Amino acid sequence: MSVLHRKDILRTDLLSDEELELILSTAARFEGELQAGGRLHNMAGQILATLFFEPSTRTRLSFETAMQRLGGGVITVADSKTSSAAKGESLADSARTVAGYADVIVIRHPRQGSAQEVADAVDVPVINAGDGAGQHPTQALLDVYTIQKETGAREGLTVTLAGDLKYGRTVHSLSHLLARFGCRLFFVAPAGLEMPARITADLRKVGAEIGETTDLVAAVGESDVVYMTRIQRERFEDPAEYERLRGSYVIDSALLQQAKPGITIMHPLPRVGEIALEVDAYEGAAYFRQVANGVPIRMALLALVAGRE
Amino acid sequence: MSVLHRKDILRTDLLSDEELELILSTAARFEGELQAGGRLHNMAGQILATLFFEPSTRTRLSFETAMQRLGGGVITVADSKTSSAAKGESLADSARTVAGYADVIVIRHPRQGSAQEVADAVDVPVINAGDGAGQHPTQALLDVYTIQKETGAREGLTVTLAGDLKYGRTVHSLSHLLARFGCRLFFVAPAGLEMPARITADLRKVGAEIGETTDLVAAVGESDVVYMTRIQRERFEDPAEYERLRGSYVIDSALLQQAKPGITIMHPLPRVGEIALEVDAYEGAAYFRQVANGVPIRMALLALVAGRE
Amino acid sequence: MSVLHRKDILRTDLLSDEELELILSTAARFEGELQAGGRLHNMAGQILATLFFEPSTRTRLSFETAMQRLGGGVITVADSKTSSAAKGESLADSARTVAGYADVIVIRHPRQGSAQEVADAVDVPVINAGDGAGQHPTQALLDVYTIQKETGAREGLTVTLAGDLKYGRTVHSLSHLLARFGCRLFFVAPAGLEMPARITADLRKVGAEIGETTDLVAAVGESDVVYMTRIQRERFEDPAEYERLRGSYVIDSALLQQAKPGITIMHPLPRVGEIALEVDAYEGAAYFRQVANGVPIRMALLALVAGRE
Repeated sequence: MSVLHRKDILRTDLLSDEELELILSTAARFEGELQAGGRLHNMAGQILATLFFEPSTRTRLSFETAMQRLGGGVITVADSKTSSAAKGESLADSARTVAGYADVIVIRHPRQGSAQEVADAVDVPVINAGDGAGQHPTQALLDVYTIQKETGAREGLTVTLAGDLKYGRTVHSLSHLLARFGCRLFFVAPAGLEMPARITADLRKVGAEIGETTDLVAAVGESDVVYMTRIQRERFEDPAEYERLRGSYVIDSALLQQAKPGITIMHPLPRVGEIALEVDAYEGAAYFRQVANGVPIRMALLALVAGRE
Repeated sequence: MSVLHRKDILRTDLLSDEELELILSTAARFEGELQAGGRLHNMAGQILATLFFEPSTRTRLSFETAMQRLGGGVITVADSKTSSAAKGESLADSARTVAGYADVIVIRHPRQGSAQEVADAVDVPVINAGDGAGQHPTQALLDVYTIQKETGAREGLTVTLAGDLKYGRTVHSLSHLLARFGCRLFFVAPAGLEMPARITADLRKVGAEIGETTDLVAAVGESDVVYMTRIQRERFEDPAEYERLRGSYVIDSALLQQAKPGITIMHPLPRVGEIALEVDAYEGAAYFRQVANGVPIRMALLALVAGRE
Repeated sequence: MSVLHRKDILRTDLLSDEELELILSTAARFEGELQAGGRLHNMAGQILATLFFEPSTRTRLSFETAMQRLGGGVITVADSKTSSAAKGESLADSARTVAGYADVIVIRHPRQGSAQEVADAVDVPVINAGDGAGQHPTQALLDVYTIQKETGAREGLTVTLAGDLKYGRTVHSLSHLLARFGCRLFFVAPAGLEMPARITADLRKVGAEIGETTDLVAAVGESDVVYMTRIQRERFEDPAEYERLRGSYVIDSALLQQAKPGITIMHPLPRVGEIALEVDAYEGAAYFRQVANGVPIRMALLALVAGRE
């Protein structure tokens, strides 16, 4: 049994180096076995419950795929409006009920701290699939896995994170992980959507080299990886301001010309214009490979917490 | 093949003693095999269709888990608004269509008699997962299974049923089963929500010893099991009356002090205050074990009607 | 590997005779194996993604059943309102994401040409489960499979297609297939809902013998098969006109008396009065067998495009 057996996966900053390595290497092993045409039975006879208290089709499908690729079964609550929560049941009671059915629970909930609340209520392992302004550890892990696969490295890279860095939960967790690997980070965000000061302070505390700018061109000129995120219209009071800013945080062929040769382009998806369609043909355009990497990462997590890796 | 092969499970009162024993013993066998780490394949290659014409997440997940624990597959219609019923298709036609896909059908429908209607329309076995004011036999069966597991007995127990006994479909079926086992029953309900007279008359006819009271304390003082149910706000014209009554039908630590030592506490869930959170730590608090017992009971039913026990 | 390996199934008119035969014979083989109690593992370890951008419970359940009967797993997006499309993601991007999870994609979408769009975007095989006014090839294939099974023949039959022939996507594809087999066709439709002239012209071009009439009685008197479709209320401005016409396109026992003996009665379902309930007992009433035939046809398609037949 691994160090992660019976553990909850709630935040990336609680993962030890050993645990992190184990997740990444297990994911790589599973991916290799699938690509070789192998069939896996690690989770045969086991049930995963995915509880989505807010919609996230991509994350839900990725977990359901991962569990089934391992031979396991899935039960899903995708619409909380028709669930017992509507009858006034507490989250802890809903979780304890589902723990009577399933061997692992995945929870997505709009309230920060909800995943911890579920983990405290049940005996089965819990994986956080996003808890509001909190964490989304499986996304950060698949991002790191993607960077490693695409660049062949992980340490000492220069990575630009661009777009909405204030509300983008993903970039917060990812920054922490990249800082641990000694990456140099550029944060490129419009005024008002900058990386929160407490996060940059944290990152500098662990020795990260950080540059903050509004100049995307300059940043990608020095970066091995650029990680784009969506700027959401609802963050702006003035629609014209939104349109203006949005246009300045787009990767297109012209920008690619000014980027460091071989740069890897990532995006957690869905994109809504942040990456021009013409970029899709560029071989470093990794965003659809990135989303596919969610499957081996989640396979690894499921098998590890269930003690069936 | 067992006596239940190709049978429908529509109501508990139609089950013979032999059938009842078979269900309970098969559930116990499956539960033991799962707990020993065994993997079951009884329903491998088979398909269960779960048709939910009203939401019941708990019951749906329990059946889906049961089928998958037996190695079978599941197709689900969880939202009748997007189904063919919305185009004006009759329930019988919808059922006959699904019978072209599945080996067993589970139906939940708000109209009393709907499960019988489906059973009349199709050749595959049908299990009633609740038909309005009618029956909910799998809930009653898992309740009996729980009582037997928790108390180590079944016959000659004293059981208090408390809360909304008028509209609570579950307590009607359960009372009948407990009366068959020679249990003594206390019915504790606020005025207006008492057990219907026709049911108490029926129960007395089969020789049941029944006490009716509004005094929960007195009842639990003599009971081996107390079965709480939710009192629904919408049953009351006067909200103040609801709040007053609701408060007097709560199990908390203070009440536990006055209960018979070792009393088993049950609830079909979700609870909305009928059992204080402080009671969860009490070892006789059986409600979350009760909900988990829905899986082996439903595994037994699925395998028995499919002739694959 | 068959000629259909890695192919998309988007329209019936693009299928060669060889491909058509392969689909029908593979379906018959799978159906035989299931009926003999066999268990199939062709798609073991594989994942089917079913993307339903408009509801179609029947088609969705049929595909999910087919995949699971072959031992495969399923992920489903049944409600586009909660999917990434709601965040502004393009259909092509949604498809590319899902292609990172699944081995085969089934798509249902209200926009004509959407299935082709998905097929162009991804590397995995795509099956069209209905694209608006476009095609619904798997329905046409299961219809042909049913005609062959029910009549024991396929070539040289006389087939009446009745009801809404203008908007009925299914009857368009089916007519083309039947014309290829040299069937004689009667089109029976109320004024305003006739088979479009471009389709009858196409059919005559390939040598089909076609009769157009409003007289259902005369047509069924000479037909081996009658294929009824639903006339939708919303096609009529005048509700009285709808009620009048609707009543004249109904198969009941009286009409059956005037039909060719042994006539096979089909309907894509759901029916809303086009076939009287009294007809269900007639042995040539094939509509519920027809809907069940969707499973072996879709099993055949899944296995063939995945190269696992």
